Formats: sequence, structure tokens, C-alpha cells
Amino acid sequence: MQIESPPTEKRYEKPEGERRGLLIVHTGDGKGKSTAAFGLALRAFGRTHVHGKRVKIYQFMKVPSARFGEHRVFEMLAETGPPPGHSQGGGAWGPLIEGLGDGFSWKSQDLEHSAQLARDGWQKARAAILGGEYFMVTLDELTYPLIYGWLPLDEVLQTLRERPRDVHVVITGRRCPPEIIELADTVTEMTLVKHAFKAGIPAQRGIED
Amino acid sequence: MQIESPPTEKRYEKPEGERRGLLIVHTGDGKGKSTAAFGLALRAFGRTHVHGKRVKIYQFMKVPSARFGEHRVFEMLAETGPPPGHSQGGGAWGPLIEGLGDGFSWKSQDLEHSAQLARDGWQKARAAILGGEYFMVTLDELTYPLIYGWLPLDEVLQTLRERPRDVHVVITGRRCPPEIIELADTVTEMTLVKHAFKAGIPAQRGIED
Repeated sequence: MQIESPPTEKRYEKPEGERRGLLIVHTGDGKGKSTAAFGLALRAFGRTHVHGKRVKIYQFMKVPSARFGEHRVFEMLAETGPPPGHSQGGGAWGPLIEGLGDGFSWKSQDLEHSAQLARDGWQKARAAILGGEYFMVTLDELTYPLIYGWLPLDEVLQTLRERPRDVHVVITGRRCPPEIIELADTVTEMTLVKHAFKAGIPAQRGIED
Repeated sequence: MQIESPPTEKRYEKPEGERRGLLIVHTGDGKGKSTAAFGLALRAFGRTHVHGKRVKIYQFMKVPSARFGEHRVFEMLAETGPPPGHSQGGGAWGPLIEGLGDGFSWKSQDLEHSAQLARDGWQKARAAILGGEYFMVTLDELTYPLIYGWLPLDEVLQTLRERPRDVHVVITGRRCPPEIIELADTVTEMTLVKHAFKAGIPAQRGIED
């Protein structure tokens, strides 16, 4: 039979010596860009929590008060606090997920306010990436403020290039700028094959939020 | 400017009346099929936990003892137990994630053993889907035992068709059989654009497992 083995992902020849932060991008029009980023954060949390390192997810287009399923679970996980022997210091034990936006849409009356929130949020995210205290920093839906011209792409690229060597960064959103794709280590395009919502099935609670 | 709003996913016209379980498929050769399924389970857990419903992830190609990051976190979440007012009954409060396989590869000496594990695992998963006590049942890497001919596709299709109306099922794996794609409500193809591992960067702990 001409058949492949299932993909295996456990090849650690030099797990200690070769630690290197990856730039991972989820783009495309399909579902799963953010949920795969949440899954990565979940996995990273499970792997690094005991070592006192944390993950942080910044959501550029969600409001700070968003209470989707993922917010509830990340809150449950945040409440577990630092593992024994690790302090609360350095700010890394705050919320795991944080909305930076104002629920923007193009019907908004005050685009400049949305743009300013994105810029303020980016400064937070930039400090988190450069500070080196996180195992992984996720920039969920970062591509939109970039596409809208709210954030300077050059500064984002420079931050990604200059980040500490072991910090993983995950970026999600449609139409990711080619300069970020070029810089990235791993890029997945999520392609829409079928979508229940387009077929007339209403959005389902617990699935879409 | 010809620019789209960020995708919004919150349109609940009749949140109570239109509850319907979706069949969601993540396929393709790219990364993120399983991690997006973990993200969906995380979201669903956060949304449904307080109502005493649970999610269950069956991993067809992972061993029961797998201790990747996601296993550690799902264990932390399982330890929170049922919310106040809900009993431990019905088996829905067991592990959130369960490996059904034996770490199979084509170098295995005992393929029949791997096939039997897949069949036994499928009976468990089938009972969970048909039992209706779960909000979401995830069949991670189900496509492989289907491709290998270990599981009867007809029985899988029949189970999916006959499941209780409100049970969500998520299937992941490469080369999903077209009959499942046809039946599915939402299908995303994860396409590999770039992969760090192929570029010679070793697999990173906390990212790949």
C-alpha cells in the first residue's frame, strides 16, 4: 500500500541546545486561525507553566470585556497562579488573554479612537515581546490594524526581528502582509472549503464564541 | 478604501431555538488541524462548563500516556470537576482528552494490534457521540484509521448522521474522505505555506507537543 504514516512531531535531537523562538502565522479566509492560536497557547501553557513561564494573547480587535469561551477558560487557568517556587513578579502572571480593541467595524463613528487603541495595544504587545519574560506572545488579528494603516509595519517587523531569541510569536488574521510571511518560520493558510454559517445555519454558541 | 471589516462571529438571532450540532472538519497538509480542534474544545469548555456539559477529545493515533502540553492543561481543567449543582454521573466528567492508539507507525511489527485499538477506540467514540451527554466530541486524527482501512467508513458516516441533533463533532487529519467532507457543515483546509522544521529548525518543545 502506498500510504503515509501519520505526521509525527517529536524529534528532539538537541532539545536544550537548539531552543529558538518561532514566528508562526495563521492566515487565510478559513476558520481556525485564532482557535489554532488558542490551541498553541494551551499547549505552551501546559508545557511551560511548571517552569514559571507564561503565554500571553493580545487580541487586537476584541474588547477587553469579551467573555467568549476561551476567555473563561484562560481565566480559570490564570487563577491557578504561579507554580511553587515562582513569584508573581514581572507582570507575567496577569491575564493570559487581553482584548485591546473597541469592537471596531467600518460603521464606527470614531475610527481615530480605534486606531489609537491599536497603537496603544501594540506598545503593550511590543514591550511583552521584547521583555523576554513570556514563552509565547500571540498577536490575534494583528493583520487588521496593519492593513488599515493604523500600525507601522516597519516597527512591527523590527520588533519581530529584534526580539529575544527564545520568544515564540504567533500572528493571526486574514491577508497577512508578505513581509511578515517572509520573516515567519511557520505559515499556515486556513482555506474555507465549507462554512455552516454561509449555508444558512445560525452561529452556534460555544462554537463561534 | 476598499477594505473589509474584521470577520465578526456573533450573530445569534435565535440562540435558543436554532441549536444544532455541527460537523466540523480540519484537513490538509498544514499545521493547526489538531491545535484548532483543541482551541475549539477550549472555547466549548469555557462556554458549556457551567451548564454541566462537557467536551471529549479522542486521539486515534496517540498513546493513552501522551503528556503533551494539551494533556497537562486538559487535566488541570478536568480536575475542576463538575460545576455546583451537577453530578459526576453519566461518565461525562472523566478525562477531557484520551489517547486510543499505540504510537503506530508503518515500522510497527503488529499492525493488527493497532487496527484493533482503532476499532475499540471507535466503539468508545461512537457511544460518546450517540449518548448525547457531550456538547462536543472531537475525533482527532480519525482520518488515518479510515485511510488505512481499519475502520468501516459506512459505520462512521451512519453514526455521524444518526447522532443527537445538538452534538457537535470535530474531525481532524489529512486526506479526509470526501464522503465526510460532503456531510460536514464547516470544513477548513490547513495548507502548508512554510514550516520551520522543513527549513532545518529543530522541533521546539511547547510548540510541537
